[in-house]
This record gives sequence, structure tokens and C-alpha cells, in this order.
Amino acid sequence: MENAYGKVWLIGAGPGDLELLTLKAARVLESADVLVVDALVDPAVARFAPKARVVTTGKRAGCRSAPQDFIQRLMRRYARQGKTVARVKGGDPLMFGRAGEEIAYLTANGIAVEVVNGVTSALAAAASLTVSLTHRDFGVGGVTFVTAHRQDHSAPDWATLAAAGTTLAIYMGLNRVDEVADGLLAALPAATPAAVVACASTSAERKLVTTLGALAADCRAAKMPAPALILVGDALGAAVGTALPAERAVA
Amino acid sequence: MENAYGKVWLIGAGPGDLELLTLKAARVLESADVLVVDALVDPAVARFAPKARVVTTGKRAGCRSAPQDFIQRLMRRYARQGKTVARVKGGDPLMFGRAGEEIAYLTANGIAVEVVNGVTSALAAAASLTVSLTHRDFGVGGVTFVTAHRQDHSAPDWATLAAAGTTLAIYMGLNRVDEVADGLLAALPAATPAAVVACASTSAERKLVTTLGALAADCRAAKMPAPALILVGDALGAAVGTALPAERAVA
Repeated sequence: MENAYGKVWLIGAGPGDLELLTLKAARVLESADVLVVDALVDPAVARFAPKARVVTTGKRAGCRSAPQDFIQRLMRRYARQGKTVARVKGGDPLMFGRAGEEIAYLTANGIAVEVVNGVTSALAAAASLTVSLTHRDFGVGGVTFVTAHRQDHSAPDWATLAAAGTTLAIYMGLNRVDEVADGLLAALPAATPAAVVACASTSAERKLVTTLGALAADCRAAKMPAPALILVGDALGAAVGTALPAERAVA
Repeated sequence: MENAYGKVWLIGAGPGDLELLTLKAARVLESADVLVVDALVDPAVARFAPKARVVTTGKRAGCRSAPQDFIQRLMRRYARQGKTVARVKGGDPLMFGRAGEEIAYLTANGIAVEVVNGVTSALAAAASLTVSLTHRDFGVGGVTFVTAHRQDHSAPDWATLAAAGTTLAIYMGLNRVDEVADGLLAALPAATPAAVVACASTSAERKLVTTLGALAADCRAAKMPAPALILVGDALGAAVGTALPAERAVA
């Protein structure tokens, strides 16, 4: 059954550099009536949506970010008015972006949802290091993308994740890097290559290459800022063009 | 030390639809002198590189694809001539694309390499299903991207991968779907949601939503074509807008 509702587009903005938007994202944004921009997305994305009313949902000047249910009701309201709504999220909307809740809510309300993929941040981190996450020479058959904490605030089972033998790409792990490293050290050698890339793809990008054993201390020594990706696994041994933190480079 | 060598760009073409190229990829292609296009990439990508000499490395008319070392030497030759070389790969270059070998070879030969990320195919498959791969309601803290076979032709340890509790996105698994399903059924219930998306994001796209227990039979019944992504995990239970194969829809 057709209705006169507008559509909601869930659009991945990519890892930071807005030039990593897809051509499709740029086209959809051009036609958007309403732009709902997530906290971690560069607000300059609005220049791709010249005719849109812009709603930012991120933390600004100490304010709390907009609650999830407020954002969902806002999208429903505009879609019911027949507007084309572009909801822009960092990375790809279908990894760690709460898109599942938004899709369920909008679909239950009879509103069509379509996704435009983006480049997920871990791949931008790997690009910054010029390293394949699945280098065949290291026998790595895959990559696992995880967050360092779960909805119920429990930690992932690091030993089981390590046992899978995939490269690990850990999102939102910097502020609990000791816990992450300790968990992985229960299953992996201290010499396992590791890297951290903060603000991947942006002018603020910073990176360090280290080992799992030195990971936590090196993050502190380098004062790595968030958001950052932590990458762990033998494939990182091939990371190119990276600098050690000053403290270790002179040691 | 500067040299007069050209640079090699490893560029992700994304999952199929060329509109999923990034703005940055389009800009770099515009400046490319030589375009080296991988087997699975739509040859129409050449229209983004109007001044480039185009080399296709894929299987054509029954010919074998170009050997990896031939491609690498070709890139080196053009880079030594000062040319800007764009090497275009399906998905993202840093997942399952043999970029590791190419980066090592070019770097060892003093040639600068830079990566432009792309949308990896598993995320396009998820977009086709309008499903988050990390839906919080299902307690899924991550996604594991794996290939169904490894360089030494051994199979991944499916039971260990399943034990990690992440959503599984399996590349190149369609022609061994029985082996994949049997391996996972040793660790996961037959009722675990599963889905297959072939040719994600293209006009040839086809998809089916099923369970792990019925996965192999449903792939055969639907005659799913390659390349296809197999997705397995509780998060797939929220897949939207999908049709069952005819045989099951009427059952």
C-alpha cells in the first residue's frame, strides 16, 4: 500500500574525511529536506544538503546528546509530513550505529527506510597504516570488528575472540585499553603486533604501532585522543609508514 | 628521499554499484594515468578515469586472470615511468584483496602506495536486507568477516568463530555452503537466522532469508549466483523486506 509518507535514508558518512562519502550519499543528501546529523559526524556535511533543515543530535557546549527516542520521533514526524529525511551516521550505519533500533521503529510506523553504506572507521585506520587486515602471508582469514563494551556493560570475551585467529578491530576501546589488553594477553603473546589510530582520515589523525604487551602504556605515553581504533593481530606486523611515540622512538 | 616515481593508489570500488565509489576515489581516478581493474569490478569504472590507459586483469572469454606477479610488475613499471597508477579492487582493498602482497612489493621497490577505502560487500549485503549487523537488542557486540577458505586450503575453525558470539559475514562461501553450514551447526542452533545476498547493490542482486539449518538447501533451491555473501547470527532475525525462496514461501 502506498502512502504519502517521506522516506528515511540512513547514510554512512564514513570515518571522518567527508571526501569518503559515497557518490550515492552525496546525491541523496542533495535531495534531502531534513538532515539529522549524528554526534561524531563533521557538521560540514550540511554543505552537501543545501536545501535541508539541519538537526544536530550531538553533544554541544556541554549539553547532553539528544535521546534516541527523541531522534526517532523527530524522523517519524518529518517523514509523516512527506519529507525526505537523511539520517547521517559516522562510518557505516549498520555497524555500531543503533540503526537496528531506528529501522525497527520506523518500519513499525509504516515509514520506508533505505541504507546508503559508508566506509567503516577500522578500514580507514588500516588505510592510514597502509596495512591489509587479512594479509595472506600471516594466515589471517578474517577480521573481527567489536566494541570494547556491550549494552549490558559486560566486557566481550576477549579470550574467545582472540582464539578465532582473526585480526581484531576494536571500536571505542581507548578509555578501557588496560582492560582490553589484559583480556587479550590471556590468549595472545605480548609480542603480538598492535596499532592505534585516532581520528582516522582527518587532519587530526594520529597513529602508533606497538605490541599488545606495550599497548596500554604506549597509548598513555602518546596521549592518544578519542575516537580511536585499536587493531591487534599478526597482520599489523606489516604496518607501513608509522611512527612510534617519541618516548619509545628514542629508547 | 624524493624520487621521480609515480604513486600507486589502491582504490576500493565498493560492492558493485559504482555509485558507491567515494568522492575521493572519483577524484583520484580522474587524475590516473593508468587504471588496473580487478576481475570483480564493473569495467564501467573506466569512465571515471578519462585519461587513463586501462588494463583489465580479470577473466575474460575463458582466459585465465592475470597472475599476481604480472600485475605487480606492471604497476612497478608504470610507477617508475612517473605515472599515477590507480589499482581498483572490489569492496575495500584492505579486506580479502591481496593488497598486503602488493603493498609489500611496491614498498620494497621504493614506490609510494596510498589506499582509498571502499564499502565492503558484507555491509552492502546488510543494506540490501536493511538490517544492522550489530543490533543491540540481540546482544551482538560485533561482526566477523571471514572467507570460507584460507590460503592453505584449510577451512576456518567454524566452531571457534561461532563461539565468539559475533554476527558472521562469510565471503566466497557459496560454492562450499554445505561445509560452512555443517561447521557452524556444530556450535549454533539450526534455528539461527541466516541470509544470503548475491551481487549486492547491483541490478542483479538477489537475496534470501532463512535459518542456518535450511541454508544449504535454500541456496540450491534458489540457485543463488556468485559472488554472494552469507550472513549468520541472531541479528539477521531483524532482516526487512526480504522474500523467501518460492519453494519455502508456499510451504
